[in-house]
Amino acid sequence: MTTTRKLKLGAMIHGVGSSMSAWRHPEIPSDASISIHFYREQAKKAEEGKFDLLFIADGLFINEKSIPHFLNRFEPVTILSALGIGTSNIGVVGTLSTSYSEPYTVARQFASIDHITGGRAGWNVVTSPLEGSALNYSRKEHPAHSVRYEIAEEYLDVVKGLWDSWEDDAFVRNKETGVFFDLTKMHQLNHEGEHFSVQGPLNISRSKQGHPVIFQAGSSDSGRTLAAKTADAVFTNSESIEEAQRFYRDLKSRAVSYGRKPEDILIFPGISPVVGITAEEAERKYQEIADLVRIEDALLYLGRFFDHFDFSVFPLDEPFPDIGETGSNSFRSTTDKIKQRAREQGLSLRQIALQTATPRTGFIGTPQQVADRIEEWFEGEAADGFIIASSVPNSLRDFVDLVVPVLQERGIFRNEYEDDTLRGNLGLSKPENRYTAERNQTNDDQMEPLSKDRTVSAS
Amino acid sequence: MTTTRKLKLGAMIHGVGSSMSAWRHPEIPSDASISIHFYREQAKKAEEGKFDLLFIADGLFINEKSIPHFLNRFEPVTILSALGIGTSNIGVVGTLSTSYSEPYTVARQFASIDHITGGRAGWNVVTSPLEGSALNYSRKEHPAHSVRYEIAEEYLDVVKGLWDSWEDDAFVRNKETGVFFDLTKMHQLNHEGEHFSVQGPLNISRSKQGHPVIFQAGSSDSGRTLAAKTADAVFTNSESIEEAQRFYRDLKSRAVSYGRKPEDILIFPGISPVVGITAEEAERKYQEIADLVRIEDALLYLGRFFDHFDFSVFPLDEPFPDIGETGSNSFRSTTDKIKQRAREQGLSLRQIALQTATPRTGFIGTPQQVADRIEEWFEGEAADGFIIASSVPNSLRDFVDLVVPVLQERGIFRNEYEDDTLRGNLGLSKPENRYTAERNQTNDDQMEPLSKDRTVSAS
Repeated sequence: MTTTRKLKLGAMIHGVGSSMSAWRHPEIPSDASISIHFYREQAKKAEEGKFDLLFIADGLFINEKSIPHFLNRFEPVTILSALGIGTSNIGVVGTLSTSYSEPYTVARQFASIDHITGGRAGWNVVTSPLEGSALNYSRKEHPAHSVRYEIAEEYLDVVKGLWDSWEDDAFVRNKETGVFFDLTKMHQLNHEGEHFSVQGPLNISRSKQGHPVIFQAGSSDSGRTLAAKTADAVFTNSESIEEAQRFYRDLKSRAVSYGRKPEDILIFPGISPVVGITAEEAERKYQEIADLVRIEDALLYLGRFFDHFDFSVFPLDEPFPDIGETGSNSFRSTTDKIKQRAREQGLSLRQIALQTATPRTGFIGTPQQVADRIEEWFEGEAADGFIIASSVPNSLRDFVDLVVPVLQERGIFRNEYEDDTLRGNLGLSKPENRYTAERNQTNDDQMEPLSKDRTVSAS
Repeated sequence: MTTTRKLKLGAMIHGVGSSMSAWRHPEIPSDASISIHFYREQAKKAEEGKFDLLFIADGLFINEKSIPHFLNRFEPVTILSALGIGTSNIGVVGTLSTSYSEPYTVARQFASIDHITGGRAGWNVVTSPLEGSALNYSRKEHPAHSVRYEIAEEYLDVVKGLWDSWEDDAFVRNKETGVFFDLTKMHQLNHEGEHFSVQGPLNISRSKQGHPVIFQAGSSDSGRTLAAKTADAVFTNSESIEEAQRFYRDLKSRAVSYGRKPEDILIFPGISPVVGITAEEAERKYQEIADLVRIEDALLYLGRFFDHFDFSVFPLDEPFPDIGETGSNSFRSTTDKIKQRAREQGLSLRQIALQTATPRTGFIGTPQQVADRIEEWFEGEAADGFIIASSVPNSLRDFVDLVVPVLQERGIFRNEYEDDTLRGNLGLSKPENRYTAERNQTNDDQMEPLSKDRTVSAS
């Protein structure tokens, strides 16, 4: 497998970068999170660098404590569609929550993007970590973590079912006879479940890649189970290669336990590379951004992961406070890791807050050094690819111009796109329509007495 | 008012045209309803013709009886966003139902399109006429007509409130001080109503045109009331100039009764012009399309307006059957008109079905004849503008190339766009943020003892 395996790359575009105060840097446009010009430039640069996909994050609740580029940003479905125009090979993947939306609408919207882009859409399934989301959606309370994942699993069942409403050759469009579609190839879903009842059919056909690629971004136990059952790819965060390898092995073996092949699910850690011509230049770039963070902002940012917990009441230079179960219904895997790191390394609240505000994923250095690290994780089965987040001014430009050529030279990254669909580039197969598969299966079974040769019986 | 009043034009793009069997015509691409290439070509042509806007219709339920181009088409939010890229002045307006969506999401999506297009978005508010929609949205039943309009009114309140979450100058982005926004200019909505409770703020700012243009498309009494209270524009259908004039006067006077000016709400009848170099050529084009309709398809199409009522059980050449209240919770204003026309003109079921399948709005003839009719309606205050639906092959191209120059020559239609926002081109003012208005009002009141001059007190 490792001989043909190729690295995958995604570019996260979220305005001013993964550091909360990066917008203060003189070379960063402070309105980037709401600038279509900026987003389109980033998309073009990523496509120039032969990236597999663009990645748009999201959230459904803000308040005065939210970090700057969450306050005012594009809604994912709309920006994905816009970025699909003017690009031709790169995938467009965006976050949408199964806790506060309707499967019929979401199935339609992603299928529609998939048609608009000619088969380059992807959906990053999340369950919404922020409790406040309920307040914007006429709900009494935010569903508990386990309930959100139950809902998500049923939701994905429904959406995938709706995406199969029409078999690939359902639309006959015979001008002579006036027959527009083959009624036997249109299917009602008739889903009746715990959380949803959806009849179908969906009012849009399957796309060139079958249906959108499913990303999943929750790394808790429930999140991993959902991913292992249903996702084509996982977006995750790991602080060390060892942690990433454990996650990688865990996800792949869970997928196998659900009857899938390890290569059916791709693991993408998120990283924030900082590239310099020299290692010192890279270090200086990182420090410039880290120095822009005010400690009060860092505390707010940290608090967000713990459902907007107020850390400002604790002393800054004493050990990270014991806050019990706070944050466990929110970004659970992240908050667990923060608590663990604080405990194991004996870090103060100030240290934890500043580290969280300017993540240092270790991919800092010369193009060769960053490429070395990427290769190490890729070859060491800690990652199938990476989601590259911007951190310092012109991060993506530098990565494309300086690191990508090194990866290409080493033969681990493509020189040209293999395909014009996202599945094609990711090396994922086109999912067969469930009803077509059923029909083919029935035909095979009927032919069995005559021949066991599938090639013959399928003809 | 009539001296400065200019005609407004919208282009409805819905694939293969307003006639249900137009897809069978040799010169019409039968996959147009799902072809991004076709949609982008139409958008470019409409912009070349200085149209105010593109208009995307929608529906939330299909079954085997639905007409061809409803079965497989783009979802409005996604296609609007895509059409915003590559165009620069034309507005993008699309249908979205208040009966099966969440105001926080819809406010975000349209605001996001408004930013992506630099202030060219519009939302056509509908309440979903099709009962079957409930089956796709986990609902026991489709809300009754009056309840749908109650919901819609509250929904619009919420969305407009969310669009004011941030005052226009809220985002300070001071790199020196690290202050990203002015907390006094961020506002929670805290809406608690009968159908929705929504806290806010929205996570996106106001656009160049303030907020998206509101279209409304229901012509029943409840629909008219909603439009008169809340809409910037109304999409309607009228079969004669007299009917259109009655509608026009009614809507404008209702708006005035709610404290608005008549010019605050624009009336757009939908028409399907057929243009020929000679009147005979136009007539031939119409007939070519009408002849493609099979009577069984026409009955299905007619049935759709009556919530998929089965007309095939009635004799074709006897008077239109008495079907009681059927259809009254669906496309009410349309079904009322059909029943009335059948009664008054003594039409048979076959005649009604074929007329409905290939609408003949009377805008058929040479470019001069079609322009005459448009001018007559416009000057006669039956319309402020028109939504032009495609009916025959190359309808939009012919309208832009042949009719628009005549309208321009007569001085009733623009030669160049007045603005790069939709409101600017429609002659609608930018709505002031409610909190800014309140603050200015308070300031005025405080200044009153000193000066009544608003210009002075506002400085």
